[in-house]
Amino acid sequence: MSPSRENAATGPLDDASLDQLIESLDSDRKALLDDLMEWLRIPSISSDSRRLGEVRAACDWVSGKLQRAGLSVETIATAGHPMVVAQTAPVEGAPVVLVYGHYDVQPAEPLEDWISGPFEPTVREGNLFARGATDDKGQVLTHIQSVCRWLSAGHALPLQIKFLIEGEEEVGSENLERMLPDLADKLACDCVVISDSSQYADGQPAITYGLRGIATYELTVDGPGQDLHSGSFGGAVMNPAIALCKMLSSMVDENGVIQIPGYYDRVQPLTDQERRQWRELPQSDAAFAESVGVKQLFGEQGYTTDERRWARPTFDINGLTSGHQGEGVKTIIPAKASAKISFRLVADQDPKELTGQLNDHFSANTPPGVTWELETDHGAPGMLANIDTPFAKAAELAIDAAFGTKPVFIREGGSIPIVTRFQEALGCDCLLLGWGLSDDNTHSPNEKFRVQDYHRGIQASARLWNEIAKQVG
Amino acid sequence: MSPSRENAATGPLDDASLDQLIESLDSDRKALLDDLMEWLRIPSISSDSRRLGEVRAACDWVSGKLQRAGLSVETIATAGHPMVVAQTAPVEGAPVVLVYGHYDVQPAEPLEDWISGPFEPTVREGNLFARGATDDKGQVLTHIQSVCRWLSAGHALPLQIKFLIEGEEEVGSENLERMLPDLADKLACDCVVISDSSQYADGQPAITYGLRGIATYELTVDGPGQDLHSGSFGGAVMNPAIALCKMLSSMVDENGVIQIPGYYDRVQPLTDQERRQWRELPQSDAAFAESVGVKQLFGEQGYTTDERRWARPTFDINGLTSGHQGEGVKTIIPAKASAKISFRLVADQDPKELTGQLNDHFSANTPPGVTWELETDHGAPGMLANIDTPFAKAAELAIDAAFGTKPVFIREGGSIPIVTRFQEALGCDCLLLGWGLSDDNTHSPNEKFRVQDYHRGIQASARLWNEIAKQVG
Repeated sequence: MSPSRENAATGPLDDASLDQLIESLDSDRKALLDDLMEWLRIPSISSDSRRLGEVRAACDWVSGKLQRAGLSVETIATAGHPMVVAQTAPVEGAPVVLVYGHYDVQPAEPLEDWISGPFEPTVREGNLFARGATDDKGQVLTHIQSVCRWLSAGHALPLQIKFLIEGEEEVGSENLERMLPDLADKLACDCVVISDSSQYADGQPAITYGLRGIATYELTVDGPGQDLHSGSFGGAVMNPAIALCKMLSSMVDENGVIQIPGYYDRVQPLTDQERRQWRELPQSDAAFAESVGVKQLFGEQGYTTDERRWARPTFDINGLTSGHQGEGVKTIIPAKASAKISFRLVADQDPKELTGQLNDHFSANTPPGVTWELETDHGAPGMLANIDTPFAKAAELAIDAAFGTKPVFIREGGSIPIVTRFQEALGCDCLLLGWGLSDDNTHSPNEKFRVQDYHRGIQASARLWNEIAKQVG
Repeated sequence: MSPSRENAATGPLDDASLDQLIESLDSDRKALLDDLMEWLRIPSISSDSRRLGEVRAACDWVSGKLQRAGLSVETIATAGHPMVVAQTAPVEGAPVVLVYGHYDVQPAEPLEDWISGPFEPTVREGNLFARGATDDKGQVLTHIQSVCRWLSAGHALPLQIKFLIEGEEEVGSENLERMLPDLADKLACDCVVISDSSQYADGQPAITYGLRGIATYELTVDGPGQDLHSGSFGGAVMNPAIALCKMLSSMVDENGVIQIPGYYDRVQPLTDQERRQWRELPQSDAAFAESVGVKQLFGEQGYTTDERRWARPTFDINGLTSGHQGEGVKTIIPAKASAKISFRLVADQDPKELTGQLNDHFSANTPPGVTWELETDHGAPGMLANIDTPFAKAAELAIDAAFGTKPVFIREGGSIPIVTRFQEALGCDCLLLGWGLSDDNTHSPNEKFRVQDYHRGIQASARLWNEIAKQVG
């Protein structure tokens, strides 16, 4: 890839030209949506080794789109799935923005819970349903579409835009993380823009300045050499499924407080200002509970729901497996039992330190007669961004214009493991502009993206390039 | 079915004729084993609704064999799988013995752990490996073969023998239990003989006078309406897999003592005589631990391993299922989590009473923010038999002659739910003559039956009919 000839410095569009650009996006909604649906039909499940071809096809789809729009595009091989790096022509004296996103998706199971197929994108009641609709194909495509439109309308962009679209976000971005220092020159930028999060609420867009980190593990408890008859052997040996339940139960008390010694030592407390601002957000525990289908919310005592989701670390069991899971009764003592578990971390918790604490905790809480193994899958620290920047100001204005509402500044509970690495490797600012909604069923059956928010996102993005040029220029 | 003409009273065989009968069994070992292998090739998994045809084929196999030997045979339909009832001619003034067994087998999963296929019976190092080899096709067939041989050798049996071979033992014998009162006339007998248990140890045959009861359940904990992203929602809602672990952990303390209020109220304590006799049995915890592949045994404190297995009630988790179980990471809060659990009960615990206690216990130990449902699968009380009977004496002599060692009197930890029902409905004695070994992998991969014990069992059975006639006659 060699960047196109450097453009002469070009200023932002005047209001009339920008309005015309936005109108053209408005009148072209069907084609913009068809584009997304085409991408969503490719089941690019990065964790599924049987899907290598489909993952590659989703990569080729986005590199082809960027290439046809006139960007310089490179597909970079990794030890896993490839990544796409693209850029518009450099603009002298203007900032460089890097848009990061991912073309890979989560597994779609349980398949039977999807109303329409996970890879058969379908619009119902103003929502587009498909795996990856909001996480992240639909969201990252808003920025690709806005850049394509600027270029196809014959406008030189008033800044340089780079894209980095990877294929391993859903499996921990380990290869990108490893290669990032070597890619630092290629990706050099003043600000990273990421749309892989949510608005605060329906009708209330948000700029996210904090993300939680993550650490995932698989704990396997081994008991007898093989499944045993629970009649002949029940009472003689420790049941590894009981041992697993005991070990997992020991992790958190009845008040939702995690019991691993040292777990909270590095947790940064919420500031009084954050707690005050967040309590002013329109928020109802009852409505939240109803939206996720529970009668009652639950979490660490002493914190509001948003505080617990955004700024407090958690422990979750993501999966349990042991013994007989099929039809009918099978009265065995299973040979082993295992759990997939994960933690959401906040700045400054360290996933590597947690692994040590966790091993110590399980060692101190192992029932007699079993052994266990803890496999570390991946980890990433949390992130807290500076929001007093011209990029944040530009985003605030662009979103206000496109959504008709000023965004609020919030944190999010999810993790985008690579964000902290960008800050470290590229020394850049970071803008998290979520176009999704909290009930988009990310990682779940019936994942969706509101069609209107897809188009608003494209328009906010088209405006953002202009606003950044104005604010920074 | 109409019983054959009543034989004139015939006494037991003299020693020479009996020796000749036993010799003929010895010289015919290959054919006797081939017969069993043919039956074992039929995958008669009663809990698997896709196996209806195979279950029926296993039923037909045994009814055909009994019919060809000259018994009166009837196949009796049930709401589930059919049962076979057969009988030899009545013998005036002589006792009637009912042999009970089952032609259905447990599921074979995990299939990948079998060295040879579960339904491809294979002899290795003196053992016949197949699902059902010892539980119960191999064991019940010993009695069928002995009766066939008496008849084919031209001897009238010195007592009447009835067979009841059912197809639902592994799913709780509910239909047989329901129909038993109506079948009481047809099955009327002085003693039930069942071979569906084990010798005490290699080289030490046993007569079992106690069995544990059983109660099985499935507990399902429901959380959010669907799987949630553990980043966006972690900290906001109770994780149902954590709730399940907490509820299951609450069932048993670190000393192996079950915590359900009232659970031990009806448990009959061991007699001093039992405790003394059992402690004299050749027993090594270290060897036992090694044989099942654990470093350390575990169970209710204050009892020996045999006491815990045979005479103390237990709680086991038979299976756990929740969330993501496939390859890789999926960071969700699962919508639900479930466990298959079972209890082994001792006389006089009542499975119905336990269901109430269990519901109360879970109600008192439900974490906030989840609901649960407890499905009752099946239950049966435990059994304690009188061993001061002529039938027990006859069995002792027959086993001593066939195995070369006097049997010891023990209890077993497993359950044969129908045994208590026979005692109630038929008012008969009960003989549990186990030809298996404790490491036969019952209900597990690589289930086996020692070929030598199959043949010893046939010979002990052939001798038993003669000894009963002597003892009772």
